[in-house]
Amino acid sequence: MRRTGNHHLTFQVPVQAAILKIAAFVFSVQGGPTTMIVNMSDGATEEQINHIIDRIREAGYQPHVTRGTERTIVAAVGSGRRHEIEALQVAPGVDNVVAIAQPFKLVSRQVKPQRSVVSVGGVPIGGEDVVVIAGPCSVESREQLLSTAHAVKKAGASLLRGGAYKPRTSPYDFQGLGEEALKILREASEETGLPIVTEVMSTEDVELICEYADMLQVGARNMQNFALLRKLATIRKPVLLKRGPSATVKEWLLAAEYLLAGGNKDVVLCERGIKTFETETRNTMDLAAVALARDLSHLPVIADPSHGTGKQSLIGAMSRAAVAVGADGLIIEVHPCPERALSDGPQSLDFAAFEKVMRGLSAPLRGVAGLVAARA
Amino acid sequence: MRRTGNHHLTFQVPVQAAILKIAAFVFSVQGGPTTMIVNMSDGATEEQINHIIDRIREAGYQPHVTRGTERTIVAAVGSGRRHEIEALQVAPGVDNVVAIAQPFKLVSRQVKPQRSVVSVGGVPIGGEDVVVIAGPCSVESREQLLSTAHAVKKAGASLLRGGAYKPRTSPYDFQGLGEEALKILREASEETGLPIVTEVMSTEDVELICEYADMLQVGARNMQNFALLRKLATIRKPVLLKRGPSATVKEWLLAAEYLLAGGNKDVVLCERGIKTFETETRNTMDLAAVALARDLSHLPVIADPSHGTGKQSLIGAMSRAAVAVGADGLIIEVHPCPERALSDGPQSLDFAAFEKVMRGLSAPLRGVAGLVAARA
Amino acid sequence: MRRTGNHHLTFQVPVQAAILKIAAFVFSVQGGPTTMIVNMSDGATEEQINHIIDRIREAGYQPHVTRGTERTIVAAVGSGRRHEIEALQVAPGVDNVVAIAQPFKLVSRQVKPQRSVVSVGGVPIGGEDVVVIAGPCSVESREQLLSTAHAVKKAGASLLRGGAYKPRTSPYDFQGLGEEALKILREASEETGLPIVTEVMSTEDVELICEYADMLQVGARNMQNFALLRKLATIRKPVLLKRGPSATVKEWLLAAEYLLAGGNKDVVLCERGIKTFETETRNTMDLAAVALARDLSHLPVIADPSHGTGKQSLIGAMSRAAVAVGADGLIIEVHPCPERALSDGPQSLDFAAFEKVMRGLSAPLRGVAGLVAARA
Amino acid sequence: MRRTGNHHLTFQVPVQAAILKIAAFVFSVQGGPTTMIVNMSDGATEEQINHIIDRIREAGYQPHVTRGTERTIVAAVGSGRRHEIEALQVAPGVDNVVAIAQPFKLVSRQVKPQRSVVSVGGVPIGGEDVVVIAGPCSVESREQLLSTAHAVKKAGASLLRGGAYKPRTSPYDFQGLGEEALKILREASEETGLPIVTEVMSTEDVELICEYADMLQVGARNMQNFALLRKLATIRKPVLLKRGPSATVKEWLLAAEYLLAGGNKDVVLCERGIKTFETETRNTMDLAAVALARDLSHLPVIADPSHGTGKQSLIGAMSRAAVAVGADGLIIEVHPCPERALSDGPQSLDFAAFEKVMRGLSAPLRGVAGLVAARA
Repeated sequence: MRRTGNHHLTFQVPVQAAILKIAAFVFSVQGGPTTMIVNMSDGATEEQINHIIDRIREAGYQPHVTRGTERTIVAAVGSGRRHEIEALQVAPGVDNVVAIAQPFKLVSRQVKPQRSVVSVGGVPIGGEDVVVIAGPCSVESREQLLSTAHAVKKAGASLLRGGAYKPRTSPYDFQGLGEEALKILREASEETGLPIVTEVMSTEDVELICEYADMLQVGARNMQNFALLRKLATIRKPVLLKRGPSATVKEWLLAAEYLLAGGNKDVVLCERGIKTFETETRNTMDLAAVALARDLSHLPVIADPSHGTGKQSLIGAMSRAAVAVGADGLIIEVHPCPERALSDGPQSLDFAAFEKVMRGLSAPLRGVAGLVAARA
Repeated sequence: MRRTGNHHLTFQVPVQAAILKIAAFVFSVQGGPTTMIVNMSDGATEEQINHIIDRIREAGYQPHVTRGTERTIVAAVGSGRRHEIEALQVAPGVDNVVAIAQPFKLVSRQVKPQRSVVSVGGVPIGGEDVVVIAGPCSVESREQLLSTAHAVKKAGASLLRGGAYKPRTSPYDFQGLGEEALKILREASEETGLPIVTEVMSTEDVELICEYADMLQVGARNMQNFALLRKLATIRKPVLLKRGPSATVKEWLLAAEYLLAGGNKDVVLCERGIKTFETETRNTMDLAAVALARDLSHLPVIADPSHGTGKQSLIGAMSRAAVAVGADGLIIEVHPCPERALSDGPQSLDFAAFEKVMRGLSAPLRGVAGLVAARA
Repeated sequence: MRRTGNHHLTFQVPVQAAILKIAAFVFSVQGGPTTMIVNMSDGATEEQINHIIDRIREAGYQPHVTRGTERTIVAAVGSGRRHEIEALQVAPGVDNVVAIAQPFKLVSRQVKPQRSVVSVGGVPIGGEDVVVIAGPCSVESREQLLSTAHAVKKAGASLLRGGAYKPRTSPYDFQGLGEEALKILREASEETGLPIVTEVMSTEDVELICEYADMLQVGARNMQNFALLRKLATIRKPVLLKRGPSATVKEWLLAAEYLLAGGNKDVVLCERGIKTFETETRNTMDLAAVALARDLSHLPVIADPSHGTGKQSLIGAMSRAAVAVGADGLIIEVHPCPERALSDGPQSLDFAAFEKVMRGLSAPLRGVAGLVAARA
Repeated sequence: MRRTGNHHLTFQVPVQAAILKIAAFVFSVQGGPTTMIVNMSDGATEEQINHIIDRIREAGYQPHVTRGTERTIVAAVGSGRRHEIEALQVAPGVDNVVAIAQPFKLVSRQVKPQRSVVSVGGVPIGGEDVVVIAGPCSVESREQLLSTAHAVKKAGASLLRGGAYKPRTSPYDFQGLGEEALKILREASEETGLPIVTEVMSTEDVELICEYADMLQVGARNMQNFALLRKLATIRKPVLLKRGPSATVKEWLLAAEYLLAGGNKDVVLCERGIKTFETETRNTMDLAAVALARDLSHLPVIADPSHGTGKQSLIGAMSRAAVAVGADGLIIEVHPCPERALSDGPQSLDFAAFEKVMRGLSAPLRGVAGLVAARA
């Protein structure tokens, strides 16, 4: 078998085919292979938990353990003999067993009710504070990036973004500075203390980017690049997963499921606008999707008003709205001189405009904080 | 360093400006008749203004006068002899004359920079306060409506909504109680003091509805029912114009233009979600369109989180976000018992849930008020 | 009750409310109120059929009789006491009783398996021949229309189209010549013998247009103008119902259901392209919808490659494809001088181009005819 | 340099930066960097052609030569000193020099007016015959594939499709048999003589798949996986490039441009339906895009009615329509037992249904052939 991290390919082919048929049947009935959730009781011992893990494996499922402050949940993921899992409700240390029907499992709040906090170079995303990631669309020069890094830090940003590899519709457009950009990003991070977020477009670049960046971004057009997702599932760096411009919230969460199922739990979701018929804005920012993704999943969700609107004049208002709806953070494009930017100029803020957006956020942040906490 | 970010606009600015002017002209030829704006100088006399109005008529245009606190603007709308209007820039009392290229004219902030306030039965929409319109999707019975009217008033709503004529995809679905519903709405208004907003679907019903309602709503599917718009342009009641589910902001503003061009200036715009590929929500609420419509037009803009999301659980969050983005009001569906509603149950709030949403709004409203005012 | 032709509004309000609740329940379970189909046996007598009709009325349904060459079907439409209809399967002359779950009833092929043929001024649409309707987008002058009428007749068109009332996004665009255009259309029809198809936008214009036209067209933006549909359900002229640019096939068929349920069986469906993200073509012509609508419904379906593509250069190819997929006809915009047309110039053919398209159709029409017949 | 096949990265940095500036300006004005087309005169000698090639290189462009039966065209692609190319119009052997403004260059019919024919294992696509590619969505077993291969060959297919690596929305869905499937495909090809088409999802699999397959397919979700496109530009196998479900025709042609610009001229385009609001069909098959892509580009264009409709019952009709509109071929999913298929069952034909579709094609193919040839 060539691909690792893909547990069900280890079955013999005839068995696998049979299981797949059952899975296909279940899917057609329920919308996906059933995941069983074994909720351990409050005082369950380590021994009892390990017993459940063993029995889940024997039943043909893959066990995933989530240890909360109060209780432990063991999810049986995949397509095994369901009745053997159901029988575990009388096992010692088990509170109850429930089946979940949604196609995504490990990203679901049913599997892990408490919200996840993802640490990026020491900065927590998904905690109490709204985190702002800022920087240019593309790294164009050392001067451009360093001046931007200092400016966004001063205005209150916690992480620095900057593109080294750019997905461009035309082969004749600027494609990014590559490793040179990564080195500049690293230097800026060392100068300012801001961790680095940068996009990865190809499995072949993953290793190199991991040497430089604190968080790897999967761009909107790569949300369903499954080879890339499988590769990123194996690394030890957090991933920022942008929603595809035509993807539903379910497809987005299933893309995140590829990462968690493959072993990488440090995933942050990012809504960046979807394709609609509206032409005045570059995309239509779907803020309900931010609230919905936070309802369905324990993963942190941030919003990108720069791509979401494509218009400098709307970024402030949409940043405030994103915070009001419960976003865990924002990612905003900032450039020393937007009209000279090699990419995304019309949606980039200059330093003064970014500072104004940040000031505008502080007041409602305080007012809204309690409400959002109450909702979550 | 491999690529530098340098300025590609190597033309002299005057040359560039000349090119842009040509582009604007081409647009005006290909995308609609040009409107000319005559900005009067600060001390222009009534006589001077009247002279301009006469000259605009002579040149084959229709004059529209907007008197601000500081200065007066006279718009020449239609397709006349443009050079005769351009010549007015040397007339007494005229500051300058500019052509506007956008296809909408009377709804534009270029024609009327100060925001409009529309009074609905004495309640101002577009002023300092965020106004909430609430009530059931359909009027189903006297008891249902009266209990709802009292409940929403108590929770802080300023206007009462309720459908008497319902646009339904199937001829076999509940079509509304018609005039019976209008009578119930009137009674509820008299009991509670809340003015009434109800939908009109046909030119033939306009007169009757005007007898009962304080504001007539054009539903999303009728946004481009031009016969209806032309009829509503002639009445003396305010109109709530919902954005069509596939309409662009420009098409929406042009639909409003039908109303203003026909003589009715009391128009409130309402964003209610657009059709997208997302299936978890009924529509995708386009909050950037709320901010954008307020930037482009002087008309008040409200938001409808009930249709915008189709999900009770998202209405609170999206209401807060709508206020944060600058909406002048909200329209929310409330029903005594949503699971028994004849229409729109899944997106209707019961009384307790509505009260909770209203409480959630009060804090950020205060925090955001200053920011929004600053932006506008 | 103000609206007629809408049977269920005759119930007393409390009874109606109860029925509506049941209907709402059935809808939520099955996707619409159940329609019962009573298939009469081959030798059923008139007396037996009338007995069934009476029993359907007694059970609270509305009876709709379809007499085929071989057997008769009586549909019970609405929301009545279903078990009373089910009991009819043992009544004399009844073969069997089945319930259909699709939301559309009278337009369904389950209710009427044989294809409908709609006669427009003597020209059958839905029969063996592919019918071509041609003419200008708007009637602009007597000369323009008469020359076009003669040209399209010579090239093989069977009906003449021409707009008198135009739905325009902007109030400043050309809105049509109104009754003047209707008179010119009538004159052209008398000169050439071609029946007339023209658009109706408002209930108030229906009567006047009926005096002049042979078929009334409901434009795409009015597909869900239910007041207009209800009015057109009461006239004795055939209706051409265009699919809305964002409507699904089901919504389109339900709009047609308004016409049939209200009493007008002479309905022709027209696919004219749907709104998509493609910008090179004005709309995306959905030819699968033509095949699908013919599978689901007995009504004739024609295609409009002019609006469907918005590009002269694609009209020939898409006309051939529409015929290959089984369309019963085509509607094509033709103008003496497209670049001078007041509307839709880029998608209008001049006389020579139209003649070429018509020649191109003749060969494949013969080849495909048998296949389409076999499929239907 | 990490990435190869990207010619303009070989320029000196200062020159390149300057070029990018001009290109960005031109793009903003005209929609893309200018390509210059040098049309050689009929009797141009090899020496004259080589002189032009040298001068194009000197002017900072990349030369691409297209030798037709009658005349030779040399395209100057990229962003160089345009006036030096314009000056070539007086060079010996040059007929004229024109600039093209469209963002795609090498795929354009302006650069290469005669249609390309791509040979796949000896089978020409883009020639006189309509080519049919058939086979299962996924290779599930040796028996399944071999029986299908023999059946589709007998019915008239010219190439065999079958998925070894499957892009799946959920990580828990069947992901394909990998190399095992490639071996089975090779065996089926040797038995039947049908060349093999199979999908590639990752740059890492390219080499392996090239050992087994005759043509590599880029799936719809990978249309803008630029890393994959750049890799496939360097191989010596033809590529089948599916249109993305939300991609415009321009974006699709620009994706093909990545392949041609990188050195692979053997590209076949495939329309497979786009995402729309219609829910009755899986996608909306955009047949106008087939005609349009053939108008804009010299590359062959085929259609996929299986994904395009997602419905067995529509495949025959849409296949005929695709041929009528000018498609160079069809790709159709066939499975011995569609209801047991591990993927795409509802849109797969069984052997008998496929044979019927093939028979249905033969008649109109003859009728339409002349017309299509005339159009092209």
